[in-house]
Amino acid sequence: MSKTAKTAPGHYSIRIKKLREEMAGRKLDAYLIQDRMDQYWLTGFTGEDGSVLLTPRAVVLLTDGRFDEAADREAPFARKVLRKKRKPEETVKELKRAKAKRVGFNRDHMTVGDYDALRKLAGPIKLVPTESLVTPHRARKDADEVEKLRAAIRVAEQAFQSVRAWLRPGQTEREIAAQLAYEMQKLGAQGETFPAIVAVGANSSLPHYEPGDVKLAENQLLLIDWGARVDWYGSDLTRVVWLGTLSAQMRAVFDVVRAAHDRALEAVRPGIKAKAVDKVAREIIHKAGYGKQFNHGLGHGLGIVAHESPRVAKTSADVLQPGMVITIEPGVYLPGVGGVRLEDDVLVTETGYEVLSSLPVEFS
Amino acid sequence: MSKTAKTAPGHYSIRIKKLREEMAGRKLDAYLIQDRMDQYWLTGFTGEDGSVLLTPRAVVLLTDGRFDEAADREAPFARKVLRKKRKPEETVKELKRAKAKRVGFNRDHMTVGDYDALRKLAGPIKLVPTESLVTPHRARKDADEVEKLRAAIRVAEQAFQSVRAWLRPGQTEREIAAQLAYEMQKLGAQGETFPAIVAVGANSSLPHYEPGDVKLAENQLLLIDWGARVDWYGSDLTRVVWLGTLSAQMRAVFDVVRAAHDRALEAVRPGIKAKAVDKVAREIIHKAGYGKQFNHGLGHGLGIVAHESPRVAKTSADVLQPGMVITIEPGVYLPGVGGVRLEDDVLVTETGYEVLSSLPVEFS
Repeated sequence: MSKTAKTAPGHYSIRIKKLREEMAGRKLDAYLIQDRMDQYWLTGFTGEDGSVLLTPRAVVLLTDGRFDEAADREAPFARKVLRKKRKPEETVKELKRAKAKRVGFNRDHMTVGDYDALRKLAGPIKLVPTESLVTPHRARKDADEVEKLRAAIRVAEQAFQSVRAWLRPGQTEREIAAQLAYEMQKLGAQGETFPAIVAVGANSSLPHYEPGDVKLAENQLLLIDWGARVDWYGSDLTRVVWLGTLSAQMRAVFDVVRAAHDRALEAVRPGIKAKAVDKVAREIIHKAGYGKQFNHGLGHGLGIVAHESPRVAKTSADVLQPGMVITIEPGVYLPGVGGVRLEDDVLVTETGYEVLSSLPVEFS
Repeated sequence: MSKTAKTAPGHYSIRIKKLREEMAGRKLDAYLIQDRMDQYWLTGFTGEDGSVLLTPRAVVLLTDGRFDEAADREAPFARKVLRKKRKPEETVKELKRAKAKRVGFNRDHMTVGDYDALRKLAGPIKLVPTESLVTPHRARKDADEVEKLRAAIRVAEQAFQSVRAWLRPGQTEREIAAQLAYEMQKLGAQGETFPAIVAVGANSSLPHYEPGDVKLAENQLLLIDWGARVDWYGSDLTRVVWLGTLSAQMRAVFDVVRAAHDRALEAVRPGIKAKAVDKVAREIIHKAGYGKQFNHGLGHGLGIVAHESPRVAKTSADVLQPGMVITIEPGVYLPGVGGVRLEDDVLVTETGYEVLSSLPVEFS
């Protein structure tokens, strides 16, 4: 069997090295990755069916014939092994080839069925359940990932501005959502990060609203929470807009949320506890009398999936570190009346923060 | 604790009854469902965070506060238990309340982490890994599900016809994909069943192609594989179209695939092995000299997810039964030249089959 012909591009090499350090720290001589997003992060391989077996010397990519070409193109540095879908025989063969004694795997991803099947074949090889060794590293984005997120934000923002200029009374939430998705895809998005929330009037107070047949009208709030996926990385933004004027009640809510949003962004820096940033926004909202109407966390990490580590919430134990990209999205929701949420995507830098998104918070 | 106030609507009652029969056959006095799609099938509850604990007497829905209202609205017949996200304590409390001794769970869904956490708290309660008890029942659609699939097919077909009329040379694959998604969403789709494959010319020979910047031109094949999701059920169709005329080579391929498609559809009936239907198409393609160029299974079950039971392939052990909805999608792919795939959605009836889709196979 020939050795790996090509070396991994710089960012993959670094990620592989980090993971090998985690393995060494746990005395693991192999680590099995089955999460498709972890697999993509580590190797660039996008195939639907894949596992990565990382050893101190090799990156083994196990997939099936459908993704043969994709594996060669996307992860030429990995040793490719084609197998029948989900069968563990080849995995065990590779573990034996590597003389692995202790194999780690993510306990929150491997199923009981897969574990039992591996266990039966593994003989003396010890299978060691761990938390995800990838998650803490995936939370800190490198320059390549930040560029992808910038692109995903740019597409989302451009599409939003087109849609905003096109908004007219009588358009339904569903039409507006369709238009936004369409503009993003035309601008190069692979798709939406998640199905957009487009909520008119009182619907804007419902945090998990699905766009329906309600029509946009003058002097009513329109809340849009959306994102574009570009090169697998997804943006996540929220704005409220209105045609005409806002009621005094919603104007007051808007101003409070805006202040919470602005102050929380300014609090972002390396070393601060995520819950302390949450607190900055929460206190402003609480003091304004809307404490109970801000019933979710301030934000979350952003990357290959829409909700990644770290958590930015009251109960989070995470500390912000350079390279993390998080959302800041305070909101106040008055049931039956309406809600305001303002969300931006922000990079934690070595010295503070950089807001990656650049849409105005208020539109004239 | 009060008894369940409302009884489940007819189709949910029947599904619950079927599952209780499966439990009884395995001497299980509880079954834990963690798969969101199984949960939706059994109860109608769509919340992202949920488990269903089915016992001989109760349907317990465990979710968190975010989905409190949705649980009441979507599954009022279930006993709702709010818990912290993914914590097993409440599940164990409910198992004890039901005096469960043997609790089944789907080994291909529960993670090792969740299992270990449950195991620690479960005491003498035996956790019994099983294959999914839901899968074989989900494969046979009831009238309610067939109606949802019909709606999803109708939306996909209407959108396709609009896009077909709009096609012009110079449009990119990406633009065409965006237009199709847009039309479907405007017609009421929640979204796409999967990101559509839109492939011009030689790209049509790549089975997992992602739409790019290649432009539509006269006398070139355009392959579109797409679906609409309506009320959680998704359609899945494929057509090839062209502006101008097709090359003699691709015309010959088209005629072979069309014959395979038509004959395979006519072979669908209850009691036939799925692999026998695959064989009908495969033999026609093989005899025409393209055997190696039809390198995937003939089809798959269709429902809440795009690929459900049964498998319709050479190696499938499944037998077609009334109520199953499957795709029939033979294809021939000539690398560097182009590919043709024709896909329709068909219901296995008591006596034969009904093609649920109604688009012409060839457009004049």
